[in-house]
Amino acid sequence: MNHKRGFASDNNSGVHPSVLAAMSSVNEGHFVAYGDDPFTESAIGKIKKEFGEDAEVFFVFTGTAANVLGLKASTENWNSIICADTAHIHCDECGAPEFFTGCKLLTVSAPDGKLTPDLLKKHMHGFDFEHHSQPGVVSITQATELGTVYTVPEIKEVCDYAHSLGLLTHMDGARICNAAASLGVSFREMTAGAGIDVLSFGGTKNGLMYGEAIIFFNSSLSRNFKYIRKQGMQLASKMRYIAAQFEAMLTGRLWYNNASHANKMACLLAEEVSKIPGIDLTQKVQINGVFAIVPPEIVPELQKEYFFYVWDEATSEVRWMTSWDTTEEDVMGFVKLLRNKMG
Amino acid sequence: MNHKRGFASDNNSGVHPSVLAAMSSVNEGHFVAYGDDPFTESAIGKIKKEFGEDAEVFFVFTGTAANVLGLKASTENWNSIICADTAHIHCDECGAPEFFTGCKLLTVSAPDGKLTPDLLKKHMHGFDFEHHSQPGVVSITQATELGTVYTVPEIKEVCDYAHSLGLLTHMDGARICNAAASLGVSFREMTAGAGIDVLSFGGTKNGLMYGEAIIFFNSSLSRNFKYIRKQGMQLASKMRYIAAQFEAMLTGRLWYNNASHANKMACLLAEEVSKIPGIDLTQKVQINGVFAIVPPEIVPELQKEYFFYVWDEATSEVRWMTSWDTTEEDVMGFVKLLRNKMG
Amino acid sequence: MNHKRGFASDNNSGVHPSVLAAMSSVNEGHFVAYGDDPFTESAIGKIKKEFGEDAEVFFVFTGTAANVLGLKASTENWNSIICADTAHIHCDECGAPEFFTGCKLLTVSAPDGKLTPDLLKKHMHGFDFEHHSQPGVVSITQATELGTVYTVPEIKEVCDYAHSLGLLTHMDGARICNAAASLGVSFREMTAGAGIDVLSFGGTKNGLMYGEAIIFFNSSLSRNFKYIRKQGMQLASKMRYIAAQFEAMLTGRLWYNNASHANKMACLLAEEVSKIPGIDLTQKVQINGVFAIVPPEIVPELQKEYFFYVWDEATSEVRWMTSWDTTEEDVMGFVKLLRNKMG
Amino acid sequence: MNHKRGFASDNNSGVHPSVLAAMSSVNEGHFVAYGDDPFTESAIGKIKKEFGEDAEVFFVFTGTAANVLGLKASTENWNSIICADTAHIHCDECGAPEFFTGCKLLTVSAPDGKLTPDLLKKHMHGFDFEHHSQPGVVSITQATELGTVYTVPEIKEVCDYAHSLGLLTHMDGARICNAAASLGVSFREMTAGAGIDVLSFGGTKNGLMYGEAIIFFNSSLSRNFKYIRKQGMQLASKMRYIAAQFEAMLTGRLWYNNASHANKMACLLAEEVSKIPGIDLTQKVQINGVFAIVPPEIVPELQKEYFFYVWDEATSEVRWMTSWDTTEEDVMGFVKLLRNKMG
Repeated sequence: MNHKRGFASDNNSGVHPSVLAAMSSVNEGHFVAYGDDPFTESAIGKIKKEFGEDAEVFFVFTGTAANVLGLKASTENWNSIICADTAHIHCDECGAPEFFTGCKLLTVSAPDGKLTPDLLKKHMHGFDFEHHSQPGVVSITQATELGTVYTVPEIKEVCDYAHSLGLLTHMDGARICNAAASLGVSFREMTAGAGIDVLSFGGTKNGLMYGEAIIFFNSSLSRNFKYIRKQGMQLASKMRYIAAQFEAMLTGRLWYNNASHANKMACLLAEEVSKIPGIDLTQKVQINGVFAIVPPEIVPELQKEYFFYVWDEATSEVRWMTSWDTTEEDVMGFVKLLRNKMG
Repeated sequence: MNHKRGFASDNNSGVHPSVLAAMSSVNEGHFVAYGDDPFTESAIGKIKKEFGEDAEVFFVFTGTAANVLGLKASTENWNSIICADTAHIHCDECGAPEFFTGCKLLTVSAPDGKLTPDLLKKHMHGFDFEHHSQPGVVSITQATELGTVYTVPEIKEVCDYAHSLGLLTHMDGARICNAAASLGVSFREMTAGAGIDVLSFGGTKNGLMYGEAIIFFNSSLSRNFKYIRKQGMQLASKMRYIAAQFEAMLTGRLWYNNASHANKMACLLAEEVSKIPGIDLTQKVQINGVFAIVPPEIVPELQKEYFFYVWDEATSEVRWMTSWDTTEEDVMGFVKLLRNKMG
Repeated sequence: MNHKRGFASDNNSGVHPSVLAAMSSVNEGHFVAYGDDPFTESAIGKIKKEFGEDAEVFFVFTGTAANVLGLKASTENWNSIICADTAHIHCDECGAPEFFTGCKLLTVSAPDGKLTPDLLKKHMHGFDFEHHSQPGVVSITQATELGTVYTVPEIKEVCDYAHSLGLLTHMDGARICNAAASLGVSFREMTAGAGIDVLSFGGTKNGLMYGEAIIFFNSSLSRNFKYIRKQGMQLASKMRYIAAQFEAMLTGRLWYNNASHANKMACLLAEEVSKIPGIDLTQKVQINGVFAIVPPEIVPELQKEYFFYVWDEATSEVRWMTSWDTTEEDVMGFVKLLRNKMG
Repeated sequence: MNHKRGFASDNNSGVHPSVLAAMSSVNEGHFVAYGDDPFTESAIGKIKKEFGEDAEVFFVFTGTAANVLGLKASTENWNSIICADTAHIHCDECGAPEFFTGCKLLTVSAPDGKLTPDLLKKHMHGFDFEHHSQPGVVSITQATELGTVYTVPEIKEVCDYAHSLGLLTHMDGARICNAAASLGVSFREMTAGAGIDVLSFGGTKNGLMYGEAIIFFNSSLSRNFKYIRKQGMQLASKMRYIAAQFEAMLTGRLWYNNASHANKMACLLAEEVSKIPGIDLTQKVQINGVFAIVPPEIVPELQKEYFFYVWDEATSEVRWMTSWDTTEEDVMGFVKLLRNKMG
């Protein structure tokens, strides 16, 4: 059974020991199901400390659910949702956003995965025209699917633009911890402080077992959200085990340690592979992902020892993700193999 | 923090230690996400041993999701789904079945929670008539929400009737372990063997942390189910931790031990409370639930010490659920309190 | 080609000549499509005169669409809609309300097709409980599917009750003209005046070719309705032809003449058939429908000459509908045939 | 009341007198509602003569409904539908396709509105990968929204490519009559003969009042379509009046006369305006639409006398549509005005 750490995805890793321990620690006794328990209360309190006391917090199971239900709360069926053409909500959720919200997704080509007012402009028309899906939400991903990071002013600029036209703003924060660690700014600055209305706060890719939080910074959106979550099949009965995970993640800055370690490993990997002639990095390395062009003929051989995904068959661009548990040895072992194959 | 074991629900309990241990045991190393891992393969193998090699198995997070996605796979938008008026899919899922399948739910009044061909008859009309939602699926709950159990011939009779009219059959098996332990029959006999097409195989109420399995006994229904699960926001990335739970549950008959213990505790409770003048049981006690009429004035006092739910305010009928971790002391302590209050 | 007038349905009849003439009269020249034309403006003005200047009016094509889109505007996906078990929205729209609104339909058994606060009570629970579809709308049909009519105080009582619990009220007015003619009250008294929030104002069953109006008496519901109509595939391009029909219907009280004539023909029919021994009327005859028990063996013979539908196979209850174009000869011819067969 | 014929859209025109006459001619007597009448049977027979005896024909009310319901019958919720970025289904249906089918729409930039295998290629990936909406249908518009026409071999090429990858093909034929008249080929050659699976056969833009037909050339798609139509709120009760319109349209080649006249008027307009210095045509004129760049300052003055739409504010590209009732005088009057303003 090959369970060697590879570079496929940060969700191929296991669960951080402190998180597992926290889950065990809440196991004793009976507690009211569906979130009316003291562990959930405590974890939500911790999240509010990071994001602001006005934040409204709801746990769900998956990142896709966090995105889709957050968008559902922010739209009417006849809205459009605007995102980068590399966005997870567009590429990797099997149409769940369309199916569940009824909305149209409109995409913008963004070479580094980041939206700007200029890029958004082309979809900002047809307001008040009933034949046209009404622009409703701009969704950005922080950090992006291409491993890049929006600065706080960049987020603010997108949010201000969206709000000026009456749109709401959504952030897919599946890797928000990596972004926060990379930028050295607080969660709050990057979200509520910059104008985000609703956030998917990801945990699974940063050492949790399962569980994400939807955080609303706009109370008009969350008022009836409990029904959306239940109807969306995302209300956990034994909620205390999600709560325990978030409690652990926000204790002793575990989230930061995990994320900054993963980021550091990606930097090391990028630094080392960029020394190898014939390997070209295609994106800035700002979090825990490295994108590079690699000769296609060696890809299968590399994958045999360290699993990873080809991002773009056409250009032989690959993606290498590091994780909270990636070691220097993992990186250097892979670099050695790569150097070898590049001969 | 009151975490005394009460009688509110079997999902107020924690996780069986063997299940927790199994989850820890798969934590080492990287494995491909989304179910393409050896633990998932092994757990599915174990499930097939119980349900038949032809069974198709898909893990999801919640019981509501298991029901809704199983029904989605079995229906077209213009079908109706017929169930008891006490069914979880009708009463407790916030309209998720309607929203997600687009179908109409039609109910039958069933005093003991059990459907029969005779009861179903009234909805068996309007076939081929485009104005009428086409009867598509009969959904039964085993054990029922009222704590009763269908015998295998009773299930067979409902399934044969449904199939004879071209309908499919769904079983909500949130407490199927309790039913199997109660009847002393195999999972297979009670499901595939009796004509069930799709099953929600529940784990959470029998000592798991989260995770249910959808099991198809009709391969035409499962062919494209992976897309339904993903679009339904129920595809776990770190699937190995659900798999480990089911592996544990099906090892050394843990499922049976947990369920039969809970059933036994309910029998004890029923036996003891029925000795108390003024307490009337309203349903047969066949699994881990006891339904009884209790004077309304003492309910709040009882709830202060042992939490439980009122099932019907109008008649002051209450529901007491036992669990895998309920002890004789819990039962006798509650009986003593009750006897006291009934004084 | 048998095009004899029967008693099957008021939508088996043709179009009143004045309506046809009105449609021809708007045929000349070009007008902006989708409702921004003077004919639409004028027809809406006429409707407002009948229903109140605050009414918001939108034309659609079918009665099902009027019901479904009006309900869509009044609900969130996680609401329930409560209606009589004989309601058209429950029995005859192939699940369109569930599919399009995502809501659960809850029914009440109402022997004469009319809801009352008492009957509604059983569904008025589970408020604020996320597992339960939140009661959202009470839908009544005026006149009912059983040919009975709510008095204005009866409507008011249902509306007051619904509003007192935070629900909205919907009226399916497919035969509202027949009800208004029967009661001798204005449209306004029976709708806005009695507390109705949204109405399906039917035309097709009263001599129009196609086209119904959705009328909102609650401006918060109509604000974004134009998008719902368009996304609901019910925005007519050549709107002037629907407008012309409503213009005609509301000119010279054509609506009243058509409806009261149809009602009168039903009264005549009821009076005559009730003289025939062995024929039992099962509902009051308050509009243009007669419900009666007829010996099953003669039904096919009757249908050969005058088409009509069996309402309930089990009891051999039949429904005879009259129409704006039914003549006394039609009625007496049928009565003669019936008397003959009963002989 | 300005009802001067302009160049806004072919749906701003009225109804052809022969069509109106046909509607009147079926007005006598009672006929079974919902399509079980001899007029509907006859009209469907006429359509089959044009499109092939295997065609399955269903009438609906609007072009949007024809597109959306045809696509619904051809997809599962987790499919994607691929179209030109100018497609009506993408730009002008307020997200109805996404809402009603649950599918993702993927667009291709096509300067002349026409898809090719080469353009489609970029979306032909992710097959069998559950995270990715599965490519399900290619939708083309004939004639396109830009007034261009696919040749039969071009259609065949797109269909063969789609079929080779397991996709179905849909044609939005809102202006299929104009295309057929332009190409001089039969309806059948351009649709079933070229590999189209489902067609929206448009009437409203070619002189009808309302009503479109959905035509399936793939019987597996139409088997349960009657339920989709009813649940889609598109089943007309007085169907005979839609049937009569199609009957008229297919009698004496009225469809051809109307369409070719409109096309001819567009040619004349194009020919004349292209003589005016400063006016640049932007698309080939193959049907009844002319696209041109016009100095923005004169647009409002032109619109005061002859209404038309600006297609692209950024470039001051306008769209002039002719209709079955456009006269040479209309064209020359407008040309004279334009020449005047350009002077």
